[in-house]
Amino acid sequence: MTEKAFQDFYPDDLSRCYGCGRLNEHGLHIKSYWDGEESVTVFHPKPYHLGVPGYVYGGLISSIIDCHCTGTAAAATYRAQGREMDTAPPLRFVTASLHVEYLRPTSMGVPLEVRARVKELKGRKVVVTATLLAKGKVCAQGEVIAIQMPEHPGGGDTESQ
Amino acid sequence: MTEKAFQDFYPDDLSRCYGCGRLNEHGLHIKSYWDGEESVTVFHPKPYHLGVPGYVYGGLISSIIDCHCTGTAAAATYRAQGREMDTAPPLRFVTASLHVEYLRPTSMGVPLEVRARVKELKGRKVVVTATLLAKGKVCAQGEVIAIQMPEHPGGGDTESQ
Repeated sequence: MTEKAFQDFYPDDLSRCYGCGRLNEHGLHIKSYWDGEESVTVFHPKPYHLGVPGYVYGGLISSIIDCHCTGTAAAATYRAQGREMDTAPPLRFVTASLHVEYLRPTSMGVPLEVRARVKELKGRKVVVTATLLAKGKVCAQGEVIAIQMPEHPGGGDTESQ
Repeated sequence: MTEKAFQDFYPDDLSRCYGCGRLNEHGLHIKSYWDGEESVTVFHPKPYHLGVPGYVYGGLISSIIDCHCTGTAAAATYRAQGREMDTAPPLRFVTASLHVEYLRPTSMGVPLEVRARVKELKGRKVVVTATLLAKGKVCAQGEVIAIQMPEHPGGGDTESQ
């Protein structure tokens, strides 16, 4: 895809996240995009992102779901406010709660696709559900409760990502 | 600590997990130990394990909780069977479900301690709860449903880690 990802709109000081920060040179660089009412990310695990033999590490799956859903929460809030993502003030969400069900082993060696939908958007809180597919099969399902960060990073004391 | 960690008893072919495998050179090398009825792991995040400025990445927190709880599930099952961890057949658990509540931002630059307890142990299913502390403050709480792997890795199709 050639358009900018949700995460590419995050301000520089909020773009060092290990999961999705474009400025974290060691990070996973998760990138999320709209596809109609759903958001989508595609991730290519490295050979060392292994859990048990042949299958992807569950912590990687939860990380992809986490960053993809907080990114979706931000993008959906811009949409709800009728704003483009490059307008100020920037919106950045952190994770209050993460729940992942691992339905079947997720095969290594293929791209992973995560599709997400907004389940609830109320003020600074957005609930996002996600489905992870490998080889067209649903391997995991997740739900994230995302909370909008205070405008001054580090000023809050109730959430973390 | 000088004793062997739970994960050090995993057979070689099950020791390449990105989170806790001693044979994964790129991995996190999470190590868990008994401390009475609780299990404990201490993890030192790298500077790049960042989420938002000053705080640890949530996906790292979920990864530590994940591997620490599946390790605890294995160790608790050996205990319940009156067996030492170096006896055959080896027990290895994978994650069926992971739930993490991020209660407050988790500070960077300090060791993270995760303490876990077995909530339920029934046959091949073990439910483990975990608490993550930084600077003595509870920053996250988690619950993992862990399922014992089939003896032939890759032979099952209902769970993943």
